[in-house]
Amino acid sequence: MSNLWSPRIRDLAPYVPGEQPRIANLVKLNSNENPYGPSPAVLAAIQREAGDQLRLYPAPDAAQLREALATYYKVAASEVFVGNSSDEVLAHAFQAFFAQERPLLMPDLTYSFYPVYCRLFGIEYETVPLDHAKGIQASDYDRPCGGVVFANPNAPTGLPLAIAEVERIVRAHPDCVVLVDEAYVDFGGESAIPLVKKYPNLLVVHTFSKSRSLAGLRVGYAIGHPDLISGLMRVKNSFNAFPLGQLAIAGAVASLEDEAYFQEKRALLIASRERLAAQLVELGFDVTPSATNFLFVQHPKIEAGALAAALLERAVLVRHLKQPGAERHLRISIGLPEECEALHTALREILGSAPD
Amino acid sequence: MSNLWSPRIRDLAPYVPGEQPRIANLVKLNSNENPYGPSPAVLAAIQREAGDQLRLYPAPDAAQLREALATYYKVAASEVFVGNSSDEVLAHAFQAFFAQERPLLMPDLTYSFYPVYCRLFGIEYETVPLDHAKGIQASDYDRPCGGVVFANPNAPTGLPLAIAEVERIVRAHPDCVVLVDEAYVDFGGESAIPLVKKYPNLLVVHTFSKSRSLAGLRVGYAIGHPDLISGLMRVKNSFNAFPLGQLAIAGAVASLEDEAYFQEKRALLIASRERLAAQLVELGFDVTPSATNFLFVQHPKIEAGALAAALLERAVLVRHLKQPGAERHLRISIGLPEECEALHTALREILGSAPD
Repeated sequence: MSNLWSPRIRDLAPYVPGEQPRIANLVKLNSNENPYGPSPAVLAAIQREAGDQLRLYPAPDAAQLREALATYYKVAASEVFVGNSSDEVLAHAFQAFFAQERPLLMPDLTYSFYPVYCRLFGIEYETVPLDHAKGIQASDYDRPCGGVVFANPNAPTGLPLAIAEVERIVRAHPDCVVLVDEAYVDFGGESAIPLVKKYPNLLVVHTFSKSRSLAGLRVGYAIGHPDLISGLMRVKNSFNAFPLGQLAIAGAVASLEDEAYFQEKRALLIASRERLAAQLVELGFDVTPSATNFLFVQHPKIEAGALAAALLERAVLVRHLKQPGAERHLRISIGLPEECEALHTALREILGSAPD
Repeated sequence: MSNLWSPRIRDLAPYVPGEQPRIANLVKLNSNENPYGPSPAVLAAIQREAGDQLRLYPAPDAAQLREALATYYKVAASEVFVGNSSDEVLAHAFQAFFAQERPLLMPDLTYSFYPVYCRLFGIEYETVPLDHAKGIQASDYDRPCGGVVFANPNAPTGLPLAIAEVERIVRAHPDCVVLVDEAYVDFGGESAIPLVKKYPNLLVVHTFSKSRSLAGLRVGYAIGHPDLISGLMRVKNSFNAFPLGQLAIAGAVASLEDEAYFQEKRALLIASRERLAAQLVELGFDVTPSATNFLFVQHPKIEAGALAAALLERAVLVRHLKQPGAERHLRISIGLPEECEALHTALREILGSAPD
């Protein structure tokens, strides 16, 4: 704390990301990273781009990437915004759309960065409880507000919300922005992007960090009506004119072009998730049905913190979130088949049913 | 304009960066980019990093780069903050330190992004006129304020302020932050970094975009007292936990390690600048003595806009800034020797004294 800080900075409660320990042989299942590396075509594109022209500023507004995304999703480039990770895109969106007289609505258990943005930008918000099955109930959002934000599939629960329910929320709020954060949608959810043409108040945010295995490259994007994109551009151009460097642009474009690799790894990951979920149910876990690359689990016989510690003793790192509503659960990222098996083996040991 | 935007967004006046046309054979002297590419060691480091581990989030707080900068400048890592270009670092600093009851002070002619940040974050500011020689007068800043920001060397004038004068401004304001933006300091200015140990209210901001030829990589940093760095971290961790990807971290570290390349290209550029400045004086230009990689010039016989247009007809792109106080000047980046010569030839043609 320093008296040289702006007053609002003193009250911030910054986001705490998952640890990034670089421990050899650690089975790292704490940050929802993709266990498969990026497409070889992505690595080749980055290597080609690592040349003399890095001395130049990137192309304004990353037109090449916006156009590639527009082609991929069958929208116009004017409906696409790109940024330095979806966290930055979300931050710009909160500032551009949610600083309103009425409070923003969000689920009481969702991505824990949302309340952090609210503090940074002085945005009032109210949380809406999940239902008894930890799901979002669209009808609970039928009330006056300055905007709505939720993740779909939701995090850390992993549960998807049916697209008709998403549409119900969007339709109920024509006078404010409904932001659907689809960071995990490629692992089983249904995207709201096709609704963008119908609802000028819908903004959908995606990331290259999860399904596209590029957390280390930092690329995210938003798709919405050109008026929303132009609002985001105003904030971006008042903050950092060139958020994406040339390597990020080249890598992201190459990722969109290698559809076969994307589909193959996505299918492998979903298969691993279903296998692991079944194994955990067999071990007595309560496993929320996941449409993401992680499982949200709870065991009736062992407390979540103790279980995480016992796993770490066996070199398996999972995430024990401290958010209210999540403290009794662990969030376990889906790893390679052998990593899932290492977790399974460790859990069997811990739960007292050692392997035969 | 949309009624879905937050009210403040409607009043923004976003920054307009220099054009990035990709025209073949264009002599591009409009964006103060370095004409020399980055060190081969930088390109090799990026290529090594373009591998499987891009699937992982970057190391928290980019510790490797912060430590490399700490070593380079003989400060502690806790005195170093890094971000996605110095524009982002400046944005965080404005929000972290300048949202005060009293107005921020800045020169009336300086980096035109500063007033843009003020609008974005609702910061009041007052401009302080330059003196008759377009210089900053330290004594003009001897008055109550909520902070001071200026570029040194200043842009777009190119003029350096002596370090004793910088110190005078810092010493006069122990209760608020003085931010010295040293984007161009490696081309001839004297850095205030050694003063950081003495003044806890001094923050110095640098970029890898100019002297290190990495505008396309997007890396900037700030050096100051650990309390200021911790204020910046709070903002960063409330906005985007991982602003720098692995490729940016690896490239920036490699750049700091190749001191010989850095010194060689810097010296070549300074020599080109001095040669071009002498040639322009010979052609009748008023040339402000520059400590940067650009010249701020005016010709008594030809209006700046007309001159820029005539140069563009000859495939030479320079910057005609529209800021009050700069409209009568051109800002010309220093290119390769042959690019400077192309500019010189074009100017001789335009001014009617064709080559012999």
